[in-house]
Amino acid sequence: MTGAGAAPPAIVSAMRAAIAESRTVLGTTAPNPPVGAAIVDPDGRIVGLGATRPPGGAHAEVMALAAAGERARGATAVVTLEPCDHIGRTGPCSRALIAAGVTTVYYAVADPSPQAAGGADTLRAGGVRAHAGLLADEVRAGPLAGWLFRLRHDRPRVTAKIAATVDGRVAAPDGSSRWITGPAAREHAHRIRAELDAIVVGTGTVLRDDPALTARSADGTLLPHQPTRVVLGDRHLPPDARILGPEARTVLVSGHDVTAVLDALPDAADVLIEGGPTVVGAFLTAGLVDRVHAYLAPMTLGSGFAAVSAPAVTTLTDGWRMRRTGLLELDEDILLTLEPTR
Amino acid sequence: MTGAGAAPPAIVSAMRAAIAESRTVLGTTAPNPPVGAAIVDPDGRIVGLGATRPPGGAHAEVMALAAAGERARGATAVVTLEPCDHIGRTGPCSRALIAAGVTTVYYAVADPSPQAAGGADTLRAGGVRAHAGLLADEVRAGPLAGWLFRLRHDRPRVTAKIAATVDGRVAAPDGSSRWITGPAAREHAHRIRAELDAIVVGTGTVLRDDPALTARSADGTLLPHQPTRVVLGDRHLPPDARILGPEARTVLVSGHDVTAVLDALPDAADVLIEGGPTVVGAFLTAGLVDRVHAYLAPMTLGSGFAAVSAPAVTTLTDGWRMRRTGLLELDEDILLTLEPTR
Repeated sequence: MTGAGAAPPAIVSAMRAAIAESRTVLGTTAPNPPVGAAIVDPDGRIVGLGATRPPGGAHAEVMALAAAGERARGATAVVTLEPCDHIGRTGPCSRALIAAGVTTVYYAVADPSPQAAGGADTLRAGGVRAHAGLLADEVRAGPLAGWLFRLRHDRPRVTAKIAATVDGRVAAPDGSSRWITGPAAREHAHRIRAELDAIVVGTGTVLRDDPALTARSADGTLLPHQPTRVVLGDRHLPPDARILGPEARTVLVSGHDVTAVLDALPDAADVLIEGGPTVVGAFLTAGLVDRVHAYLAPMTLGSGFAAVSAPAVTTLTDGWRMRRTGLLELDEDILLTLEPTR
Repeated sequence: MTGAGAAPPAIVSAMRAAIAESRTVLGTTAPNPPVGAAIVDPDGRIVGLGATRPPGGAHAEVMALAAAGERARGATAVVTLEPCDHIGRTGPCSRALIAAGVTTVYYAVADPSPQAAGGADTLRAGGVRAHAGLLADEVRAGPLAGWLFRLRHDRPRVTAKIAATVDGRVAAPDGSSRWITGPAAREHAHRIRAELDAIVVGTGTVLRDDPALTARSADGTLLPHQPTRVVLGDRHLPPDARILGPEARTVLVSGHDVTAVLDALPDAADVLIEGGPTVVGAFLTAGLVDRVHAYLAPMTLGSGFAAVSAPAVTTLTDGWRMRRTGLLELDEDILLTLEPTR
């Protein structure tokens, strides 16, 4: 395998474009990876861009080749993941690239899945130069993180979201919580929703707040992708609960076993826990939180509900110490991203 | 009065040096302001630096003039506050500057105190050019903030400190809280202590944690200035409580009236509330918090004590919404500074 240390600037730019393209399909491709691809002509111009279609649809390379048409002949393909080599519902991308007359392929991350790996070897056997590793860290920690996590751990990556005051309150004693965080933080949270496969809440949150749990833009319109809504718990939901509305799929999981939630999402790569405190605490206690998104508002409340409820904790070392992997200012609020130190 | 918009670069540098010098005496000068001064020779070199001595001692200008000696003749004085014009325990600084042969004075903030104002007029009457306003905003929001606050409100500026997890916990159910934040955050908190006049805790914190509440460097040695320690509450303290140790003055205030704490500190400009949750909540409820320092660790705890306890709060609008005026990364922790929007 040849490294990509010396990729020309036009190829690096094309990889960034492919990464951006792959972000547009986050949450829509499970069980397939959200991949982006660009076709670059000999002058360094991007002549085709594509991303993975929903399951059963074309892969990113095929989309980009279709956009490029005859300009793919003699061109370079830039892909965020090693082109697949297996014949599933679609043909192998390695063969499609050879057939289109592509002469060189740069890809970021090698495909670790046993059934799809080997694409680079097939490309080389077909006379195509294949370079691995271009912007691999960025792709691995970015658009492919959830999919890679699922491959390694056989469950989705779980993000727990809290939106709290600096003293950790998510609602006042009377249940009021609108709005602790401001518009910029809420818009960010909706954008994250639109990139995920599923959102999980407890029946308590549904009964108290009646959230729609849809992903919307600032003006209230639905974003193109709506994650599956999962409600955990035994309490009865009113038939007119907004979460049962037609905007997205809703799955009800009875009981309080958080692993049952993940079992109900056998393909999902990225799942968001939106609470309340009991559900977030249950996922933490089960060791099933891989990332925390803490939106914190410049406010103290001094009373009401804490962001996380984990009654089994008795001493400080029972808590979940993580490392800070992100810090973002969202107008007056901030977003802290934490991840386990494993 | 002449503005300082066109101050030469050497004079701006000297003002920054005077500001830095004034920071070294924060917390030690009450009821006097913590002022810094620099004497700059005609070649732009700083030939004397000084800051306010403890009450009864020399003012900043006199210290800087003493350091400059004969080099003050024909020089420019740069001072963070308008030189005083009154004869208190020390002579007026305006006259001292004239007598030393200083030809020009730049100062940042005009003196708003009725008994000391008028220094600039005296300087001009003595043939000295006086320019106001250089880096005034920086000084007003910085080293002189507490003193100016006290003048305006007739009480010290109150900062409430919390050191919590992102879910707002300051201790686990068993009381354990060492260490939620890391070494960099703790060192920062000790540095802040050393810049303040007094630290306030409740008897509950003393009985639970037995803190010394001294200001120490990372290696444990005492910093030069130790703020007065104030303990609020009715519970009996053991005679060997570390807070009663000889390193600093300790004031006991019985009862639960937070204004009694401020009355017990008639000169203090800057006071820090270090908790626990009940004391912080009481100051918030009384409308007596002018700044929040929230040190937040990358950790969730899910159980235990919340950072702020204000039982009178019933709904979200009862809370204290502020604006974020600072955000600092301290290794894995962050420090959020919040201030009321008034």
